[in-house]
This record gives sequence, structure tokens and C-alpha cells, in this order.
Amino acid sequence: MATVNPWEVKGTIDYNKLLKDFGVQPLQHLTKTFLQHYLFRRGLVYAQMDFKYIAEAVEQKKPFVMMTGLMPSGKFHLGHKMVAEQMVFYQQLGARLYITVADVEAYNTRNTDMKELHRVALEEYLTNYVALGLDLKKCDFYFQSARSKNAKKANAYYRLSNFLARHVTFNEFQAVYGEITPAKMVSSLLQASDMLHAQLPEFEGPIPVVVPVGIDQAPHLRLARDMAQRIKIWKFLPLSSTYHIFMPGLKGDKMSSSDQMSYIALTDTPEEATMKIKKYAFSGGQATLEEHRKKGGNPEVDVAFQLLRYGFEPDDKKLEKIEKEYRSGKLLSGELKQIAIDKLTAFLKEHQKKRENAKKEVEKFMKEMLL
Amino acid sequence: MATVNPWEVKGTIDYNKLLKDFGVQPLQHLTKTFLQHYLFRRGLVYAQMDFKYIAEAVEQKKPFVMMTGLMPSGKFHLGHKMVAEQMVFYQQLGARLYITVADVEAYNTRNTDMKELHRVALEEYLTNYVALGLDLKKCDFYFQSARSKNAKKANAYYRLSNFLARHVTFNEFQAVYGEITPAKMVSSLLQASDMLHAQLPEFEGPIPVVVPVGIDQAPHLRLARDMAQRIKIWKFLPLSSTYHIFMPGLKGDKMSSSDQMSYIALTDTPEEATMKIKKYAFSGGQATLEEHRKKGGNPEVDVAFQLLRYGFEPDDKKLEKIEKEYRSGKLLSGELKQIAIDKLTAFLKEHQKKRENAKKEVEKFMKEMLL
Repeated sequence: MATVNPWEVKGTIDYNKLLKDFGVQPLQHLTKTFLQHYLFRRGLVYAQMDFKYIAEAVEQKKPFVMMTGLMPSGKFHLGHKMVAEQMVFYQQLGARLYITVADVEAYNTRNTDMKELHRVALEEYLTNYVALGLDLKKCDFYFQSARSKNAKKANAYYRLSNFLARHVTFNEFQAVYGEITPAKMVSSLLQASDMLHAQLPEFEGPIPVVVPVGIDQAPHLRLARDMAQRIKIWKFLPLSSTYHIFMPGLKGDKMSSSDQMSYIALTDTPEEATMKIKKYAFSGGQATLEEHRKKGGNPEVDVAFQLLRYGFEPDDKKLEKIEKEYRSGKLLSGELKQIAIDKLTAFLKEHQKKRENAKKEVEKFMKEMLL
Repeated sequence: MATVNPWEVKGTIDYNKLLKDFGVQPLQHLTKTFLQHYLFRRGLVYAQMDFKYIAEAVEQKKPFVMMTGLMPSGKFHLGHKMVAEQMVFYQQLGARLYITVADVEAYNTRNTDMKELHRVALEEYLTNYVALGLDLKKCDFYFQSARSKNAKKANAYYRLSNFLARHVTFNEFQAVYGEITPAKMVSSLLQASDMLHAQLPEFEGPIPVVVPVGIDQAPHLRLARDMAQRIKIWKFLPLSSTYHIFMPGLKGDKMSSSDQMSYIALTDTPEEATMKIKKYAFSGGQATLEEHRKKGGNPEVDVAFQLLRYGFEPDDKKLEKIEKEYRSGKLLSGELKQIAIDKLTAFLKEHQKKRENAKKEVEKFMKEMLL
């Protein structure tokens, strides 16, 4: 049995079953604009709630917001890259980006070393975002612990999170979080404010807001949507959200920040990445060369193939050819791994060069931003 | 049996037993400075925790803070006047005043009409404070929903309340509040930040802070003190607090905003006040004139006498004389009521004149203050 909830993802996941469990809809009838991006085209972003508001805003060139957050712990790895790519894509589509560092949540539920939390947020996350193409000048980037240099905005953001408390019950929190503590509750209220506050009069006013998350986060979205409908002081458009499939970890299960051998970090050297793929990447190939030639490999569970699918082979036709050849047994596991290694190491080299410039940009940005 | 907790006060209260129950100490060895004020001199402010920091600051003319809050509901009555008098007294002693309108708490636990909440806060509370002598220019007056026009301060105040959540458990909340809801919890965290945030680097830094409250509020103070000791990001001096005895309502039990006939509001006309005392004020006199002359009255339960004790007769010697004559039966209940009526109506006339000027001052102040 698979377990998928906001705290835990394990087992073999039936993504169609999750749609039902979480009460979300498949993402269908995408416009050309969205089909440009491999994540949408390849069904890696596969489900949604009220995505119509976003599709409409994009089509009609009306303003909309993309909101996302980062939990500053561990290394920035390929799983995070997937979210960053959506940020960059939405920014190119004209979205106003709201990006929060969930440092209050990190303090309240993980560790209390604020310096370390902020170092990770900037060096690991923000620097990689910029190197991946994020334009900082067009972002509203903030920390949950320090919303804004603008007092009206700062007060408004926290006001919303505090007022939302009236519009939610303990049972609802418990249904989402299991065991609930004061710390988790405050984190959840702030998270709801993160998703909703762009629509306050001090920010954009009612506006379409999309929150792209992993399917495990669906209960959080639902809670925020419910609270927004109940509070009457302000008017909110229903939150839009999209849900993506998890990028598999090297061993085939979820990529996890707490297991170094499950991920490739964007600061891993090409040599480290090569070693990890050779040594750990789960293969869909057969046990012997002979058997492989006869039965062929299984790309669905093959991590090297999945890396290509998750963007390292951007060309659909080439990807299809690789898939066919692998299934037929023409392409061997080792050969497939080598294709992935070549793509990945080229990316890492290029990315790490970009990180050098990004570092300077982040440093400058933070000087201007910090309270 | 008496019931005294943050939500309910009823029955005959044994104030000495409460000291023990709530783990607070009697207020003793007061300096001349404090003995000037009738509330201290007459033992109406009767208990404390860590009051020594405040006594020392006053003696050595060092900076200190007085923090208090108001719940914007109902009429401002004589029970509230007692708190206002302490505010004015501390201000005269050189304290920096922090005064919060608990509008988030009111929204979360009472009614959601923010306009009405703010009207009551200004017209009922702030206007009366000013008429009673508060100097607005020397106050940091704010709403929980809008801490400051200064972004650093606003962020810092909410940051503290959000971080405190890590340092408290559900069981602790439950011990103080009985049934606990998300709304009550958020209110409690904000209340703790109200009491503690003056000591943050964005405000005064570590500094003695006194919070004068009714004895029923002792569990709240204790919770805030405990959280402050556990959080390590900032350094807090232990909170100081004083505890006062409840001013009796007209019928002899607690003065309550929800029972019009239990209180005299500072906006009651002299005629209304006279009527209320004549008609409702509980008397400590005997049933017949003859019996009264023989046995005398009981000033402890006589509401008219208590009004004089609670400041309407500022002269201790005169108060003592009245007490003696009442106990001896020389002074009749009706005569005692008339003394109280004379003092009270003179005060109300004068106060209501002062309110006219105070209104203008509050109006001007709010224009400058509001976000």
C-alpha cells in the first residue's frame, strides 16, 4: 500500500487514485502555451483545482500570481528544480511571483538555528532559482518571519493569518496533519496566508493565484481554500492549484533531502553525479545482456530514463526513440545511464557556472531586501 | 465556592487563597512613591510577581515599560477606570506605555464586526483614558491587527508571536483555557507577544515590563513568562506583574460589561448613575433604622462604601471616619449612598466635560496613527 500525505510519501503510488482521494481534477485541455513546457506536455504536472482562472488570465493577458514556498532545509536537488522550472515558466508567462521562505515553519517544526535556515534559503535555494532563470527583480521574495519592508503589507499579511484562526476547527487541522501541535497550527495558518494574501487590498486585490505543489500537499490547499471562503472581511477568488508527480529518487522511491544517496544536488560535481547514477540509479533493465536483448527494459521504473523524461531530454521525439529502443532491448541499461550522465553532467557544469553570477545577484538583492 | 479563572469570576472570593492557587506573592514593602496612590495604599492592587524590577527602576529612575490591553466590547465602566488610573500613574512615574487593542482576540472569540470593535476602542476606551489623564503622545498605542507603521517593528511583533508557538504545548494551553480552539490559541500567542515584545531589539531591548491585571488573569501571565524563558533567540527579563482585586458590581458581585445594571459607565449621566446607586447598589446596612443604629452597617459588602474606597474618597482619614460611623450605626445606608452619589456625580460631570476635549485629541491622534 502506498502512503501519501503531507508528511510522508512512500510505496508505489497510484496517481489516478490520488486524484479521487484528494478531490482534485485531472489537468486536461491544455492550451498551446502550456504545452510548450515539458512538465505539462509530459503529464508530470497532472492535476489541478480551478486552473481555469489561470488559463484564462494567460490567454487574455490579464494579471495573475504564482505563489510558492521553500522549506530551507538540506540540499537543493533535482526534485526542487522541477518547482523552480515552473516558477521561471510562470514568470515568463507574465505572472507576478510570490515566493516565501517558510522559516517560521522550519523553526517551529524542525530546527531553531535561524542563521543556518537563512543561509540555506539563500545559498541553496535562491541562488539556484536565479541560476535556473528566475528574475529576482520581478519577484516578491520574502521570509515568513519578516514579510515586508512596507508596514502596510507586513501588517496585512499577519493580520490575515491571525484572523483565519477563527475560520478553522481543530478537527480540520487534525484531518490534515494527524497529531497537531501549536507550532504546526501556526505554521498552517501562515501557510494559508502565504497562499491567500496576494489577494488582500494591500497587495493585488482579488486576482487569480496559482500554487503549484506536489500531490501530497493537496490537503493544505483545500484547507486554505475553505478558510478563504468562510472569512467575510475580504473577498478572495478561489485559489488555483496544480499538482505534480514526484520525481523518483535514485533508488526508485521518493527523492528525499534527508537521504544523500537518493538525490543529485545541483551543487554535486559532475563526478559525484556520475558516480551516483552508476552506483545507485535503479535500472529497469534485465539481469543479463541476453535477457535484456530478448525482453527489453522497463523505462517506467528506470531512473536514468526518468531523468531524461524530467527534462534532461527536452526533445519529445528523441525521448520517444530512446524509450522504444530501451523497450525493445536495443538500448542497454548502461548505455541509457550514459545518455543520462552526459545530459546531466553537461547541465551541472553549465549550471554551476551560472551559480557564480547568481551568487552575486542574490547578495545584492538581499542587501536591498533585508529589513 | 468561588470560581475564578480567566473566563469566569463568581462567588465570594478569598483573595488570600487565590495568591496560593495562582502562585503569586503579596505586594509588600511598597516605597513612598507607590503608597501615594490609593490603589496601592488601600491594598486594591494586592499581589505581584517580580515587581522588584519595577520598584528598582522607579527608585533609580531607569527606563521601564507598562503594558496593558483592552478588549473593545461594551461600555467603559468604573472597573476599567481602575486600570486606566494605573496607566496614568505609571506614565507619571516615567514608564513607557504600551497599550494594545485586542481586536484580533475580539474578532476570534467574540464578534467579527471590525468597524464596531474599532469604534468601541476609540470612543469608549481611548477617549476615557485621555479624559482620565493619559498623555497619548507618550504612548505606544496599537491594534493587534496592525502593530505599527514601522515595518521593522510590525514584523518583529508578529515574528515573536509565531515563534512562541514552538515553546508551548497544547496541555499548557488547555490548563489555562479549558476548551481550546485555534482562535483562542492564536489570541493567547498574540497576548504573550503583547506582553513580551517591548523587550525585542526592535523596541526597547531587555527592560523591566509591568503588566497590571485582575487576579483572574494570572494564568495568562504565567504562560507568557514560561514561553519567554524557553525561547533562546532573544533575551527577556522576567515579566513583572501586579494583580488587583475586582471592583464589586452594583449588586455586590463582579462588575460585568454584559449586565448594564451591574456597572456605572463613565458615559452614564449623573441622573442615571444616581438612579442605579439608589435602586441597585447592594447595601451593608441593617433591615430597619432601629437595628442599624444598634448593630451598625457592614462596609465590606456595602457597594456605596466600596465606591468611596475605590477612589471616590481620596482622603484616607475621611474614608476611615465614614467607615467608623457606618460600622457604629451613626451613618445610615441612605446617607452613605448619598455621599457616594455626590462624589460620583461630581466626577461624572467633570469627566464628561473632559471627554469633549479628549474626543478631539483622539481623533487627531488616530489620523496620524492609522496605517
